[in-house]
Amino acid sequence: MTSPSSKIPGEFALIAQLFAPLATSPGAFGLTDDAATVELPRGHELVVTADMLVEGVHFLRNDPPDTIARKALRVNLSDLAAKGAHPIGYLLALSLPKRIRFDWLRKFAGGLARDQRTFGVSLIGGDTTATPGPLTIAITALGTVPKGGMTWRKGAKPGDLVFVSGTIGDAGAGLALLRRRAKSPRALIARYQVPTPRLSLGLALRGVASAAIDVSDGLLADLGHIADVSSVRLSIHAGAVPLSAAYRRLGGDPVRAVTAGDDYEIAFTAPADRRAAIGRAAAVAGVQITEIGQVGRGRGVVLLDGAGREIAVARKGFSHF
Amino acid sequence: MTSPSSKIPGEFALIAQLFAPLATSPGAFGLTDDAATVELPRGHELVVTADMLVEGVHFLRNDPPDTIARKALRVNLSDLAAKGAHPIGYLLALSLPKRIRFDWLRKFAGGLARDQRTFGVSLIGGDTTATPGPLTIAITALGTVPKGGMTWRKGAKPGDLVFVSGTIGDAGAGLALLRRRAKSPRALIARYQVPTPRLSLGLALRGVASAAIDVSDGLLADLGHIADVSSVRLSIHAGAVPLSAAYRRLGGDPVRAVTAGDDYEIAFTAPADRRAAIGRAAAVAGVQITEIGQVGRGRGVVLLDGAGREIAVARKGFSHF
Repeated sequence: MTSPSSKIPGEFALIAQLFAPLATSPGAFGLTDDAATVELPRGHELVVTADMLVEGVHFLRNDPPDTIARKALRVNLSDLAAKGAHPIGYLLALSLPKRIRFDWLRKFAGGLARDQRTFGVSLIGGDTTATPGPLTIAITALGTVPKGGMTWRKGAKPGDLVFVSGTIGDAGAGLALLRRRAKSPRALIARYQVPTPRLSLGLALRGVASAAIDVSDGLLADLGHIADVSSVRLSIHAGAVPLSAAYRRLGGDPVRAVTAGDDYEIAFTAPADRRAAIGRAAAVAGVQITEIGQVGRGRGVVLLDGAGREIAVARKGFSHF
Repeated sequence: MTSPSSKIPGEFALIAQLFAPLATSPGAFGLTDDAATVELPRGHELVVTADMLVEGVHFLRNDPPDTIARKALRVNLSDLAAKGAHPIGYLLALSLPKRIRFDWLRKFAGGLARDQRTFGVSLIGGDTTATPGPLTIAITALGTVPKGGMTWRKGAKPGDLVFVSGTIGDAGAGLALLRRRAKSPRALIARYQVPTPRLSLGLALRGVASAAIDVSDGLLADLGHIADVSSVRLSIHAGAVPLSAAYRRLGGDPVRAVTAGDDYEIAFTAPADRRAAIGRAAAVAGVQITEIGQVGRGRGVVLLDGAGREIAVARKGFSHF
């Protein structure tokens, strides 16, 4: 593809044609200024998070451009979801290798437009640069909570129970399928390519969950962060971890599920007397919630078999280094 | 360098050892949560901007790690400066090639620590990932302005004058020196490696400047953005462009100066009757301000010689594509 029409038309034309239409917030000034302004509702504070995605690390080079865009946005919204924040907007920094053509970027922007409508957010700024390396996407997402209302990682207490939304392991299985160039089951591949940020659930869990995190690196690894900062020990029952029918048909290995990552479900702890509120949150958000373990005194996270024995896990989740 | 002590100790240990100490804001939770919270002073709004720097594009691979870090932070603070915002914090997303060692990152974090003290900002979040490509640094900077108080790019009016802070062309000359492996003049190289965000000046120009932008891609190119969004024509006198003594000693070509970029000065327009206020702003900020042209009806930006004739400029500034 080297026809002139398929080349990138210059940084500023690119922004004007593809990205300015995504800047629906008035404070984004149609991306014609150096910066954007954001007003917060009275009594609220900003919640802000950043995630960077690198081709070949967080998505595959041949993934469709619209799903790459949607995943990049959604993994950031997932952080806001776990914190109980209401999303408002995001900044997008893109470094583009030479092979990326206008049509690819048009589809990428189309994926963002679709998800902006789904989640009610606006592009409010960013940057576009060339790179001799892989496509790299850095998103900073902004949301709001009533002051002091963010759900922390710190806050799990001995006696609390451990819960997780949805099903675990599907995205990891989807990635394994893509790596062997399989095209089905589509449901698993879709969970890797387009995760679902549990925004309604996160809002419903505000004031109910004692600690929460979104599952990105692997359920055990991410629960390990709650254990660390809360100074508690989490015991997870392997047999209780929710697995999808599609995942079960592929063997349904629970250890693989809890270490695979990319689920973007919300893992959280809550006092046992909040079970009814959790049931209502699940109903409001339209997502299943499963009780998978307990919080105790001590440190770290352990996976237990049906007899209560610890299952040795070599690697609790994904690590970059 | 392959001794164990020089390797990166894992993503989370890296964050805990090098980056958590930079998270001095209480809402950053020592980087132990998925997100940070930011409260705004009453009557203020958030100003937010993002810039991504790629090795070999925005800095050189052999630049010192502390100056790479400081440049990445400062180019973002420069955007806040041009908008009249008071900086509060930033998020840092880093993608690291395998060759980057712990000691390199320690120096990188040291550069950030130094500049955080200089500018009164806190790291409040971010992400660290591996990359098979070049070192890539994405920063999102947050600042505040009184509601409605941001200095826009849009706002230049026919009859206004055009001004610029400091001197122009030094950073471009510094880059040219580095590319031929020259080590002096240091003053020029330092301006490329560690630009100075004009934060005090930006605050002092709030309500005085009718439009402002920071000079990153090249003075003419950046003034072109003001011309575009303000729907005016800017006439710049080549002979009036402020050049440093060091730049003059290298020949002092004004056309090269106004197209080179990386100056991170503030270029702005203001009504002619605000000259006294501009003089006071320069004194408060301790930086020279030079009147370099006029705003008229029409479109675009032109560079004029001493006789008022247009100087043909092939390329007004840096473009990535």
